[in-house]
Amino acid sequence: MLKQLSKIAERSTHKVIGLISGTSADGVDAALCEISGEGRGNVKIKLIEKHTEPYPDFIRERVLSASDPKGGRTGELCELNFLLGEVFAASANQLIQSANIPAAEIDLIGSHGQTIQHIPPRTEGTEYQLGSTLQLGEAAVIAERTGISVISNFRARDMAAGGQGAPLVPYVDYLMFANDQSSRVALNIGGISNLTFLPAGGKIEQTLAFDTGPGNMIVDAMVQYMTQGNESFDRDGDIAASGKIHQALLNEMKKHAYLQRPPPKSTGREEFGFEYALKMYEYGHKMSVMPRDIIATATAFTTLTIAEGLKSFVLNKHKIDELIVSGGGALNPVIMEALARELPGIKIENSDQYGMPLKAKESIAFAILARESALGRTANIPTATGAQGPRVLGDFTAA
Amino acid sequence: MLKQLSKIAERSTHKVIGLISGTSADGVDAALCEISGEGRGNVKIKLIEKHTEPYPDFIRERVLSASDPKGGRTGELCELNFLLGEVFAASANQLIQSANIPAAEIDLIGSHGQTIQHIPPRTEGTEYQLGSTLQLGEAAVIAERTGISVISNFRARDMAAGGQGAPLVPYVDYLMFANDQSSRVALNIGGISNLTFLPAGGKIEQTLAFDTGPGNMIVDAMVQYMTQGNESFDRDGDIAASGKIHQALLNEMKKHAYLQRPPPKSTGREEFGFEYALKMYEYGHKMSVMPRDIIATATAFTTLTIAEGLKSFVLNKHKIDELIVSGGGALNPVIMEALARELPGIKIENSDQYGMPLKAKESIAFAILARESALGRTANIPTATGAQGPRVLGDFTAA
Repeated sequence: MLKQLSKIAERSTHKVIGLISGTSADGVDAALCEISGEGRGNVKIKLIEKHTEPYPDFIRERVLSASDPKGGRTGELCELNFLLGEVFAASANQLIQSANIPAAEIDLIGSHGQTIQHIPPRTEGTEYQLGSTLQLGEAAVIAERTGISVISNFRARDMAAGGQGAPLVPYVDYLMFANDQSSRVALNIGGISNLTFLPAGGKIEQTLAFDTGPGNMIVDAMVQYMTQGNESFDRDGDIAASGKIHQALLNEMKKHAYLQRPPPKSTGREEFGFEYALKMYEYGHKMSVMPRDIIATATAFTTLTIAEGLKSFVLNKHKIDELIVSGGGALNPVIMEALARELPGIKIENSDQYGMPLKAKESIAFAILARESALGRTANIPTATGAQGPRVLGDFTAA
Repeated sequence: MLKQLSKIAERSTHKVIGLISGTSADGVDAALCEISGEGRGNVKIKLIEKHTEPYPDFIRERVLSASDPKGGRTGELCELNFLLGEVFAASANQLIQSANIPAAEIDLIGSHGQTIQHIPPRTEGTEYQLGSTLQLGEAAVIAERTGISVISNFRARDMAAGGQGAPLVPYVDYLMFANDQSSRVALNIGGISNLTFLPAGGKIEQTLAFDTGPGNMIVDAMVQYMTQGNESFDRDGDIAASGKIHQALLNEMKKHAYLQRPPPKSTGREEFGFEYALKMYEYGHKMSVMPRDIIATATAFTTLTIAEGLKSFVLNKHKIDELIVSGGGALNPVIMEALARELPGIKIENSDQYGMPLKAKESIAFAILARESALGRTANIPTATGAQGPRVLGDFTAA
């Protein structure tokens, strides 16, 4: 193990692969990038290659079924962990092949894995006593199949230190976006939406970050339900754009208890997943709301939770100059236009313009986090996760 | 991570804690030992302190329930992993306190964790396609609570390389017991019985190791069943000594398909656990076999599987000079006397006499294995596990 880590420490520039499958369980996002530098404003990334390998249907079904807290079963989870290890490894190997770079030149893989369960500490209304988290995609399988050392299981240590285990991307936002001149918010609209507030000239302890609530998760689930699985998301916001917001349904959605909870806070499929989406869809259906209007309303709800999260917990105390948006939601004009309306006076751009490719942000983030861990740097932000202090994240599996 | 590993690599003598809860899920066996030296015959261990912390009943119940392949549930396994991390950490901290040594002087923890599921590759008669294994007891929690770096998840890499992920202790047997003068077999009678054949002057590739079948697992389960949980095992073999072997029942037990399977092979609770024990108990009961005779028969079956395993797969080709027994079964005179009868001409001793405390063998073994991994040495024996080659085992979690 020492040998591999020493080799990494000897260099200043590294080729690192980041692997993640998000809460929406679509498949593995893989990014190979060259990373150099240390500390705020000095970390530079060059995206060499990215690749998204959708899960085959049977994998996605097993993942979604296992993600139900009452789902799973020990034998199934045991095998699924190794099976997802194979899927993640295949995805990394495909990326390496497309990049046409020998695996031996790649220093490290940071694998977030597939979140199957994430139970923040003191989760109300459940039987759970402890904070805990479970990401599958066995690192030993990835190391074995790729011949590259792996860092995985990033969230557990932060939770062991009393944190929520999420969000972890704010550290990357801090490295990449924080500066002395302007106050910025980095917003990622993936399955869940999360934001990082980076005050001008602020220290890492002044970084504030939390999940605002749903990203594309609710709309994705509704689109899948109404098209019987033929469509998996509302491409370019076309359905939402064709519909009208239904105020009574929107009001019902706004009742969700998560929105009022003060940061640090994180959420997931447990609160905004298929079950919730279906409940809201049926609620709208009973009021005879047209399907496209339900989608327009759920899209508005998503935007509104982001805007309200910003207003209630950031803009109440701070000024924001720029909002840097990444994730699939940044490609939805209905969301982007609504955000601009809700947040006048804030310059809204996507992360591509800041050297962070918007569609690969999360996979790049875990490449950056893995490199920080291998180099012995702490990479959680206690003000974002609620942990007792900064910690070196993840487990190292030697090639 | 590098910093902690470098510190370990700078020294030649290490204080390491080994933690394991065996397949019988009794509780955490913890051993703190000082380990020095490298390679066959040169590794010396000094046991500083050992401690066994029985699981509280509710933990044991949750472990046993989760160990059923159809048991578990995602939410339960997610929490149980962190909960067992707390239990393992508490056990390590108690050990450190008893030893009265500052935690800062301890270099490393090797935590095997609690096996919840172990599915060897190509397991017949099941729905499983892949070899996979699941040990719980979150390493991040252990590192956080003790302030000591942890190596965990030892079995996964061997399985990723096509191995059975077991047995792993043979490498330790090789380091500790192999020599040029005599051919030895190291036998551990824990929940499962496993043996390691170490031919005189043999190279590591000539080591042969496999699980012979049940250790105390069947008798323990039967004793618990017949005493309604008041007794957890047959202390000193008293019940077995008071009973008679029932030949028809013994013949029924001998039909178990595992016994004929050639090595490499490994087994566990899936094949010899409570379900099997109960089936055999009821089989005996229907033939009006007295409970103490059932225990005597199951004890004879245990001994017989060990002796037959030796005869069929070792003695058929090799001479054995010494049998070095460890594990709880070494304290059962009924087993030890039966072994002596079955294996005339072989000197039978317990491992205490070879510098390996018999009741702490497995916890010490994982301390030794963790040290090997931290020092970058491979520690699986491909001839024992069936893996494609030697691998550095485990995941490193920095303190």
